[in-house]
Amino acid sequence: MLLDLKELYIKEDELIGSEVKLQGWVKNHRKQKEFGFIDFNDGTTFKNLQVVYDNSLENFSDIQKIKLGSSVTIVGTVIESPKEGQKIELTLKSLVLEGDCPDDYPLQSKGRPTREFLREIAHLRPRTNLFSAVFRVRSVAAYAIHKYFQEHGYVYVNTPLITTADCEGSDQMFKITTLDFNNLPKDKDGKVDMSKDLFGKQSYVTGTGQLHGEAFAMSHKKIYTFGPTFRTEKSNTKTHANEFWMIEPEIAFCDINGLMDIEEEMLKFIVKYVLDTCPNEIEFFDKFVEKGLLDKLNHLLESEFVRITHREVIDILKKADVKWEFEPSYEDDIAKEHEKYITEYFNSPVFIIDWPKDIKAWYMKVNKDGKTVAGVDLEVPGAGELIGGSQREENYDVLMNRIEEMGVDKTTVDWFCNLRKFGGCYHSGFGMGFERLLIYLTGVENIRDVIPFPRTPGNCDF
Amino acid sequence: MLLDLKELYIKEDELIGSEVKLQGWVKNHRKQKEFGFIDFNDGTTFKNLQVVYDNSLENFSDIQKIKLGSSVTIVGTVIESPKEGQKIELTLKSLVLEGDCPDDYPLQSKGRPTREFLREIAHLRPRTNLFSAVFRVRSVAAYAIHKYFQEHGYVYVNTPLITTADCEGSDQMFKITTLDFNNLPKDKDGKVDMSKDLFGKQSYVTGTGQLHGEAFAMSHKKIYTFGPTFRTEKSNTKTHANEFWMIEPEIAFCDINGLMDIEEEMLKFIVKYVLDTCPNEIEFFDKFVEKGLLDKLNHLLESEFVRITHREVIDILKKADVKWEFEPSYEDDIAKEHEKYITEYFNSPVFIIDWPKDIKAWYMKVNKDGKTVAGVDLEVPGAGELIGGSQREENYDVLMNRIEEMGVDKTTVDWFCNLRKFGGCYHSGFGMGFERLLIYLTGVENIRDVIPFPRTPGNCDF
Repeated sequence: MLLDLKELYIKEDELIGSEVKLQGWVKNHRKQKEFGFIDFNDGTTFKNLQVVYDNSLENFSDIQKIKLGSSVTIVGTVIESPKEGQKIELTLKSLVLEGDCPDDYPLQSKGRPTREFLREIAHLRPRTNLFSAVFRVRSVAAYAIHKYFQEHGYVYVNTPLITTADCEGSDQMFKITTLDFNNLPKDKDGKVDMSKDLFGKQSYVTGTGQLHGEAFAMSHKKIYTFGPTFRTEKSNTKTHANEFWMIEPEIAFCDINGLMDIEEEMLKFIVKYVLDTCPNEIEFFDKFVEKGLLDKLNHLLESEFVRITHREVIDILKKADVKWEFEPSYEDDIAKEHEKYITEYFNSPVFIIDWPKDIKAWYMKVNKDGKTVAGVDLEVPGAGELIGGSQREENYDVLMNRIEEMGVDKTTVDWFCNLRKFGGCYHSGFGMGFERLLIYLTGVENIRDVIPFPRTPGNCDF
Repeated sequence: MLLDLKELYIKEDELIGSEVKLQGWVKNHRKQKEFGFIDFNDGTTFKNLQVVYDNSLENFSDIQKIKLGSSVTIVGTVIESPKEGQKIELTLKSLVLEGDCPDDYPLQSKGRPTREFLREIAHLRPRTNLFSAVFRVRSVAAYAIHKYFQEHGYVYVNTPLITTADCEGSDQMFKITTLDFNNLPKDKDGKVDMSKDLFGKQSYVTGTGQLHGEAFAMSHKKIYTFGPTFRTEKSNTKTHANEFWMIEPEIAFCDINGLMDIEEEMLKFIVKYVLDTCPNEIEFFDKFVEKGLLDKLNHLLESEFVRITHREVIDILKKADVKWEFEPSYEDDIAKEHEKYITEYFNSPVFIIDWPKDIKAWYMKVNKDGKTVAGVDLEVPGAGELIGGSQREENYDVLMNRIEEMGVDKTTVDWFCNLRKFGGCYHSGFGMGFERLLIYLTGVENIRDVIPFPRTPGNCDF
């Protein structure tokens, strides 16, 4: 019976005594004179399978030569394991070497390679325990997100990546072109003639699907996007990458309070699903990556998230007996040190609402005070800002004023503003960076280590 | 009780007699002197709800003024409908106008707008019956795909969009840059100095995730990608767009026969899931978009897909009593007319395998004859090629020969070739264009009508 290792573990009780066939890789190989042990894994699950063989096998001496990293087909009998910490092991009946792995394989068992080194072999690192686990959790978390929204009646919308709309500011977007850089067409003023490009004008790959998402919220009520986004930021920090994935739901007939309800429910759903589906991976992260991870995640599930205004946050920060690097201000954004303090103060995730309008985006709803907007940031203990959202400005005239005020190119978002004219309604949405969530879920600190092939300034190999 | 319309229909039996609150849009409004009918929908489901009101309501005269397209909050009592074709309707108790919709709304009920016109108002067209249905089916089909792979132990991998690797040929890829076109840095030879760009070299947005997917198949055994891809093709046909979504699974220890098993099982799973989840949408398409659609889809579920070589297909075509526009040839690709003939000949989906190597991609496994490769195209009745895949060349030396032969830039795919050196194994994968699947599922003929905001040459509005 040909099985994935994952299936074998699921059915381990009933398979004891059965012959099974598995295909995967040699993770470790300890040889004695008359027998040997192979740690086997096929990447479908966390836990290796111990495979035991002895010199009664015909090709015993060939098997003894099999190297770490080789791919193999094995047939054997499932038996109860005498070893602690594992219920079963496999008594080998036959082994076929599918693909050899020479000694210059960069992932030898000796020594623990640094994460920096592993980034340089991004095509091989998913074979390590750590990255095998990170990328299985990435997959499971992605599915949890789809599952949450689909089961709650949302429509998944694939908003375009190529765009001419100016949501976050075109200076933060990559330009795309089919033109030859060394032979650019020029107009009569000597400027590059973008009308000769494939789309007849300058186009970009986008940093958000929000504007297009809103159009669909006005037809399908509850929608979400989940796809790659791009930023040209030239910063080399642990939390920035030039390509990352975002989840951007938009909900019609939803105000800022309804939005916070959704964010809290969704986040708990995802965390619970990952805990239920990946217990071995989370245990591993808890032990070797972030001590206390499991408690942190369980604590989130039990918390009732705090809801507080930006003004109230600043009050608390000002009263705190702390020497701040950045002085808290009613007019300003809050710094990382403030985020940290406030989540520790409440020992809970915290929604901060009603931000000064000058530091927030042009599409956020202006509150009745005329000074703040109905934006909401979710701060979580140990990770800072995880989700940013807002009620959207649904009043056409107020929106046009804001566009003027913030210097947005009106012509590119004309269609978007017109959504307010034809059966518009109060509505809200948020954006969650998928990698930020993964950093929170795995304890892995650097965004480069939760993206299969990360793109950062100067780094676009593979 | 605040409900989505979808929930109301699911619980319609138990809700008869109950008061419910709904929020959505006016799809039609027929007024009589003393009463009126509103067709209401919130986009969460296909079927409108009939809302009946009369002049006993306080704001009767205001309600009578409510225009098509307006957004409303309604409260009413669910009653059994006397009208055929609907089980329930709503007796209105109160209505609040959330957002007005003036007379210049482009989607008036009079006349049926053409699909060409609707493309020009891509931000509003999801409000029509047709596009509301198409984009719900798109969402459900996407979820079916995730569901199939996740439930079968696959890991979802987000391969990078930004790349320097040359899989399909860099002339078919969009270049991306942060440089200023009107002020490009030059090297000492006067050429544009791409080392000054964000990634330090020319980078692209990719047309495939396959190469990166293979790296993960060598660690996680069974993986899939599902994300946007880009092609610069300047063709204005019904089936080409410059941005579209692809599903690209890669499976280790899987040969071409195993691959066909997976493709067949996956496709039947998706079709069945969509039929079960969107019966009203499919009924609508069957009636108004493609007569016979439902039969076509049910027939696929019952078919055992034919498996045949390219050579055998050419034999059949040559024997056929048809005057071909393109003469069938053992050395060439098959034309649309051939695809059509062969699926009608078998009255079933057909896998065509073992293609002449010169017309297929460099990474496909060369068969023992040295002349053909283990590629497989799936042709389906009424739609032509739906999936293209192959067993991959796992032999390092043969692969290097092919790279030479086909003129691929070796330096950009070096890491990929090295996967064969370190525990490589026989493996296979395929690519399915998501929009091609949607065209098949909905009967909608033009790719522009299954993409929320389509990008085609000269068209990048919104």
